[in-house]
Amino acid sequence: MPPVSPLAPASFPDLPVIAGVRFATAEAGVRYKGRTDVMLVELVEGTSIAGVYTRSGTRSAAVLDCQAKTGGPNDGRAAILVNSGNSNAFTGRNGQASVDAICAAVADRLSVEPTRIFTASTGVIGEPLPHDRIVARIDELATTLSETGAEAAARAIMTTDTFAKGASAEVQVGGQSVRIAGFAKGSGMIAPDMATMLVYIFTDAVIAQPALQHLISDLAQTTFNCITVDSDTSTSDTLICAATGASGVDVAGDDGFATALEAVMRDLAHQVVRDGEGATKFVEVQVSGSRSDDDARKAAMAIANSPLVKTAIAGEDPNWGRVVMAVGKSGAEADRDRLSIRFGDIVVAEEGWVAPGYREEDGAAYMKQQDLVLRVDLGIGDGTATVWTCDLTHGYIEINADYRS
Amino acid sequence: MPPVSPLAPASFPDLPVIAGVRFATAEAGVRYKGRTDVMLVELVEGTSIAGVYTRSGTRSAAVLDCQAKTGGPNDGRAAILVNSGNSNAFTGRNGQASVDAICAAVADRLSVEPTRIFTASTGVIGEPLPHDRIVARIDELATTLSETGAEAAARAIMTTDTFAKGASAEVQVGGQSVRIAGFAKGSGMIAPDMATMLVYIFTDAVIAQPALQHLISDLAQTTFNCITVDSDTSTSDTLICAATGASGVDVAGDDGFATALEAVMRDLAHQVVRDGEGATKFVEVQVSGSRSDDDARKAAMAIANSPLVKTAIAGEDPNWGRVVMAVGKSGAEADRDRLSIRFGDIVVAEEGWVAPGYREEDGAAYMKQQDLVLRVDLGIGDGTATVWTCDLTHGYIEINADYRS
Repeated sequence: MPPVSPLAPASFPDLPVIAGVRFATAEAGVRYKGRTDVMLVELVEGTSIAGVYTRSGTRSAAVLDCQAKTGGPNDGRAAILVNSGNSNAFTGRNGQASVDAICAAVADRLSVEPTRIFTASTGVIGEPLPHDRIVARIDELATTLSETGAEAAARAIMTTDTFAKGASAEVQVGGQSVRIAGFAKGSGMIAPDMATMLVYIFTDAVIAQPALQHLISDLAQTTFNCITVDSDTSTSDTLICAATGASGVDVAGDDGFATALEAVMRDLAHQVVRDGEGATKFVEVQVSGSRSDDDARKAAMAIANSPLVKTAIAGEDPNWGRVVMAVGKSGAEADRDRLSIRFGDIVVAEEGWVAPGYREEDGAAYMKQQDLVLRVDLGIGDGTATVWTCDLTHGYIEINADYRS
Repeated sequence: MPPVSPLAPASFPDLPVIAGVRFATAEAGVRYKGRTDVMLVELVEGTSIAGVYTRSGTRSAAVLDCQAKTGGPNDGRAAILVNSGNSNAFTGRNGQASVDAICAAVADRLSVEPTRIFTASTGVIGEPLPHDRIVARIDELATTLSETGAEAAARAIMTTDTFAKGASAEVQVGGQSVRIAGFAKGSGMIAPDMATMLVYIFTDAVIAQPALQHLISDLAQTTFNCITVDSDTSTSDTLICAATGASGVDVAGDDGFATALEAVMRDLAHQVVRDGEGATKFVEVQVSGSRSDDDARKAAMAIANSPLVKTAIAGEDPNWGRVVMAVGKSGAEADRDRLSIRFGDIVVAEEGWVAPGYREEDGAAYMKQQDLVLRVDLGIGDGTATVWTCDLTHGYIEINADYRS
């Protein structure tokens, strides 16, 4: 096992209890030995469930199943079941059969409609999921459900993650308190259109499914869809947000709630990058002055995905030439001689050339920091975008040339 | 210096003399010490010169200058001057000033029109080119021009290359012999829209500039624009083909000539991949059965650029699940359950799942080869594409996290 990422938070946060949500975990032995690999979440009657999924053309059976169920009838309780170790992706007709078998077992044991059961699988692609091992644990899971099991659930769904990722918020709406708590897994195969990520967020807010769906689809654009570790996109990415309504507080249209939810989503997204395979630097890439926000995003993602930029960061080399290269290949409209670059607050280049006051030793000193901000202004418009990434190191090669994920 | 790539050819080929072309090299000390870093090529009167250049939005001054000159009046002799060590890219107004100074010195010494002088620079981005050091060597270069200097020229333009790259062909057109000889440099920052590559190809064929331009623009699409090392695109990529006409043989519209030229271009393109930074495997990715050739190319490039596919290859892991992932993220239309994958002749997956007869040990044994062919059939149409890439190894990280290119 690789050591815990140097960019990891000091500890897993204390997640507040979200009324109406209960968790359980078990060791099903899907692939790993001596650790939990299945989590079950039970959601109280009336819970609104919204989802955002990978747009991969080779989506897994569980993703297709969840997509078909999202926005469906809100009847009775609901459940989420996730396993790690095997992604049940590219397993032919076996894929849906495994999803059906798991949903049937959960439906039977918890008396939940199968259309209200959302599964996910993460791990190896292309090997049939031994779903019998999961089905054999459903009874154990159902009898150990607990409101305080979120952290254990976060750990059960980890694959190459080096730390469990959680975040929470509490926000006042009309003088009453609303809670949000979530967790995520993912550390490689991370790029927009959702990363190799599974994210589960729970709130006791009252909000109808369409409004919740609209909100998380929007917020995913500026959080989970703005991170990249290696430009690779999983076939299984899933973000589910469940609102139990147990607080009795209606949050529809409330900006404070949206802001708090976005903060939880951004925090989790950043933690995924901080656990990027082999990462030693956390990098925020800010692009401004482009012809459009879309152009800014193109340029920012080209910088964030460039192997040459990422290896320069790993080497603590203030190699702004590679940043220029990445802008050039991005497809964003650019004028070489109006481009400026800052590393943090250090003006490195302006008007298409090295800045008059720039000293290489200042750039080199800045690059030694663990958290970096690369700022590029294209100087030709008002478009902006911010994305997050990590460096590309020997650790990434070690993990991916040896580990069969 | 990194050792010579394990994928390198045994030796530099014997390039035939191309009548009408003379080469010279010198040690100008642009950046490197103790090696040649400038090459001058003199081309006889009447030479047709065609060029294909990077489409980067932050193109270097030399590229912009060459583009402006390509297709211009065919008056008198012509010249090519290339330096290594400094790319003269992103150097603000200094960029064009350096190009102008070099062209003026060559024009003066060789009595060539400045509009017939094509320069290129390769190396560090963002530092002013000390063009005085080059200008100071023009006289020495002019007095040492030789018809047999192609290999020395190929060596003078190398940067992180671990071997010099040359290729040639001789073809009969109407019973008469026509010769083609070329060389290239490049090993990182290699992706379509021309790689971090400089390529110079010479022929004694008779062919008008527009016809030559049409031919090499076409052939670049299936050769140099079908290779990728790291998905990064240089600001300086340049391919120039010069036809001196000295053979007296008109090749316009001759398929044999086009085929021979394409073979030289493909050979050089493959050698660039074989010198990919840190490469230990040469990989051909063939995609068929897509809705269109464009979709096939998208899928092939997504596979060839995927860090997870490339690290799996480095680890000799027959991880076809990552190939599926890359197809899924490519944007090409795909039907998960009609996709099939072969490693060489081994059928690994079909109908969206592992093939019945596939044995993991067969895949693992195949992956130990140095030259690999990954074949993906999407099963939904007639589109095809072939691209070439290498694996992603610790060597790539070492070269790019330490070397300031």
